[in-house]
Amino acid sequence: MYNKGLLSYFITACFIAITISLDGQEADKVIKSVFDEALNNQTAYRQLEYLCKNTKGRLPGSPAAAEAVEYTRQALINAGADSVWLQKVPVPHWERGLESCRAISSVFGTEDLSIAALGLSVGTDENGIISKIIEVHDFEELNRLGKKNIEGKIVFFNRPADNSTINSFAAYGGAVNQRTQGASEASKVGAIAVIVRSATQALDDFPHTGVLRYEENVNKIPAVAISTVDAELLSKWLRSDPGLKIHLTSLCRNYPDTWSYNVIGEIRGSEKPGEYITVGGHLDAWDIAEGAHDDGGGCVQAIEMIRIFRKLGIAPKRSVRAVMFMNEEMSGTGGKEYAREAAVKGEVHYAALESDRGVLSPRGFAFDADGERLNKLKSISEYFEPYNIRDFDKGGGGSDISPLKELGALQIGYIPETQKYFYYHHSANDTFEQVNFRELQMGSAAIAALIYILDLKDF
Amino acid sequence: MYNKGLLSYFITACFIAITISLDGQEADKVIKSVFDEALNNQTAYRQLEYLCKNTKGRLPGSPAAAEAVEYTRQALINAGADSVWLQKVPVPHWERGLESCRAISSVFGTEDLSIAALGLSVGTDENGIISKIIEVHDFEELNRLGKKNIEGKIVFFNRPADNSTINSFAAYGGAVNQRTQGASEASKVGAIAVIVRSATQALDDFPHTGVLRYEENVNKIPAVAISTVDAELLSKWLRSDPGLKIHLTSLCRNYPDTWSYNVIGEIRGSEKPGEYITVGGHLDAWDIAEGAHDDGGGCVQAIEMIRIFRKLGIAPKRSVRAVMFMNEEMSGTGGKEYAREAAVKGEVHYAALESDRGVLSPRGFAFDADGERLNKLKSISEYFEPYNIRDFDKGGGGSDISPLKELGALQIGYIPETQKYFYYHHSANDTFEQVNFRELQMGSAAIAALIYILDLKDF
Repeated sequence: MYNKGLLSYFITACFIAITISLDGQEADKVIKSVFDEALNNQTAYRQLEYLCKNTKGRLPGSPAAAEAVEYTRQALINAGADSVWLQKVPVPHWERGLESCRAISSVFGTEDLSIAALGLSVGTDENGIISKIIEVHDFEELNRLGKKNIEGKIVFFNRPADNSTINSFAAYGGAVNQRTQGASEASKVGAIAVIVRSATQALDDFPHTGVLRYEENVNKIPAVAISTVDAELLSKWLRSDPGLKIHLTSLCRNYPDTWSYNVIGEIRGSEKPGEYITVGGHLDAWDIAEGAHDDGGGCVQAIEMIRIFRKLGIAPKRSVRAVMFMNEEMSGTGGKEYAREAAVKGEVHYAALESDRGVLSPRGFAFDADGERLNKLKSISEYFEPYNIRDFDKGGGGSDISPLKELGALQIGYIPETQKYFYYHHSANDTFEQVNFRELQMGSAAIAALIYILDLKDF
Repeated sequence: MYNKGLLSYFITACFIAITISLDGQEADKVIKSVFDEALNNQTAYRQLEYLCKNTKGRLPGSPAAAEAVEYTRQALINAGADSVWLQKVPVPHWERGLESCRAISSVFGTEDLSIAALGLSVGTDENGIISKIIEVHDFEELNRLGKKNIEGKIVFFNRPADNSTINSFAAYGGAVNQRTQGASEASKVGAIAVIVRSATQALDDFPHTGVLRYEENVNKIPAVAISTVDAELLSKWLRSDPGLKIHLTSLCRNYPDTWSYNVIGEIRGSEKPGEYITVGGHLDAWDIAEGAHDDGGGCVQAIEMIRIFRKLGIAPKRSVRAVMFMNEEMSGTGGKEYAREAAVKGEVHYAALESDRGVLSPRGFAFDADGERLNKLKSISEYFEPYNIRDFDKGGGGSDISPLKELGALQIGYIPETQKYFYYHHSANDTFEQVNFRELQMGSAAIAALIYILDLKDF
């Protein structure tokens, strides 16, 4: 009995050891084949080129967005998804119009400044606004100046994204409230429009746009972003000529809400088809951008995961979905609608990964987990050592997948190199040419490999 | 006695603990100030712009190289080096001439191919060469074909840099012997010229040049690099039309050897002035390139270390030198001469760091060390966690500092992100515009911080 038990113990131990060892070996081989396939195939790169060059500026509700929806639907079918469908999403409908901004100084003369209206901003009338301008750095300064100094003027928010902040998302976060809330805050003290320094660490000629939010019951005033180079110029002129005037015209307009779509492609799970893993980026892009890094790249990486799984015969246990979320930029209705329907259907969501930090070279993943679970997730990094992908850290997923958190989905963020991401973000500089094939595809492979491992093991 | 001993033990222990803790804290603060200074100052970035735009194509012995020598000498003085001097270096003198390559096919018509002569190659005469061409992938295939198939023809070496190889330097290394030895190997079996596929993972229109080495006592034949796009085209045409001819003209020429200079700037050590730490890149660049990533960036990072040390009042114990090595690309005489003179003078070289892998975002450092020393060096990585610089691994330094190894200098390589480095390398695509300010300066700061820590502690 004892001997038998011991023998049984040894046999079991050996069996486990062999299983783990083989399992590990095979997972390594599968992951190698995933990277090989990604780096030897141009499909995703050419899809991104198409999105950039043929559906540039695909704002929610625009013809370009409709074209992108149809194109990625077809791409998911071509990739071999078991089922592909569109999910109707309510979206705002906003359009940029002619826009110009001229500084008129009795000291320096006149200068046309490089601007772009903020998303969802109201416009001026056709004659524009001619007004004095006052520079402030934060809401505290704005409120200290108060109505007596601000009323009837344009407010110029000029707090830079801090260049010495290493995490470029943190630098962005430290500046962006001027863009999102500046119009409302300035309106409360009587401003008639706002000009906001672009939220980027770059010193460049591109205005970087983005959405604003008007508070309820506050008079809506026009808002535009100004390039950082022209923000520096305007600030310099104002120091010597506080009386300079701005002639601001922005014929953008809000239309009634309309409809667009999330695009979803699914590989049916081989063992647990009722459990879902979602991988996505957002399909909408700013009207002045090709939306290569933000976020056409994230979209084609998700499609590429489906293509690679099919090509290599990887059959995940759980159902795996690639989702092109619509309207991340304006109001996030795509992500909300996806989670709402999932909740209504009682779907079990195991994990969700978002790629919306650009598609520069991969560094790793962020997991919204703690303690033992986080440690287990960090241990996945060993599979990625051969690819020099090392950053497996605690962190967030992204705004499109965050509504899935309530359904229990582990939130995962794809983390590429980001030092220069905000040089592209929300500007005309976000073009296909700024994406490197290898960097994009190292990311596609990393995402596909992570989902493969996550599904294979239980975390 | 015992109590006194115990008390003494405690006091000593507390003192050590406080010292280490303060030391660690202060080092952290110093490193933070190094990064702040680098990211808030444009000096190095503007120096790189100058080198790229005003000394483009600074081959050893060229007027552009002479201009770069003088410019960086002045930059080192401006940075605050205690002494700045030039070190005379023998260099080859090679010049590109008019060059063209036309494929003439009875099936497809004619096509001008994008080529660039290899450095140190001999040229054709003014009429060029018109000849049949034969494609091979490696020297084994070349020798199997032998004289009877090769004699009198142009050899087309078309083995690609493998795209699925993750380490782009390894992929380059797997293809580059066609460029360095191809002409000699082909000459031995009677070839009259060679056309070599550019050693890059990119599929692009840029020919990527580089040096070749002629074996002694082998007939020297002309050699050019062809862009990967045109290599694909030529290969495709050859499959259908093996009789196609090439009209190759390359009026490049070798001149008698001449002289140029290493540029050296030194901060005198405060405690051990007779021990040296060398930090450098190479100043020469290919004539068709601006030499931004290869290696103007490495040069200005070394100058920037001097500027930052002076600006922040960092006084290293050892003498620290920034060295702009001359002629890395052709025959490495700058690095050799620097080590030769150091040996003659009996200088003690503690460590040497080379930045010659481009200036994309920093990943870390490679150390040519083993065992306990390597572990100690790896422990430095904790200082770099706030900057997300994590790769402290075993590896090599670089070709310019390698002759210092015999003098005992620890060899250190600066390791930036490299997935797209070979998209620029040795081509007209290596321009200032391909360098990002933050990525360059994160690297400058990382190098300065590493040298500060290396000198502060003893490794």
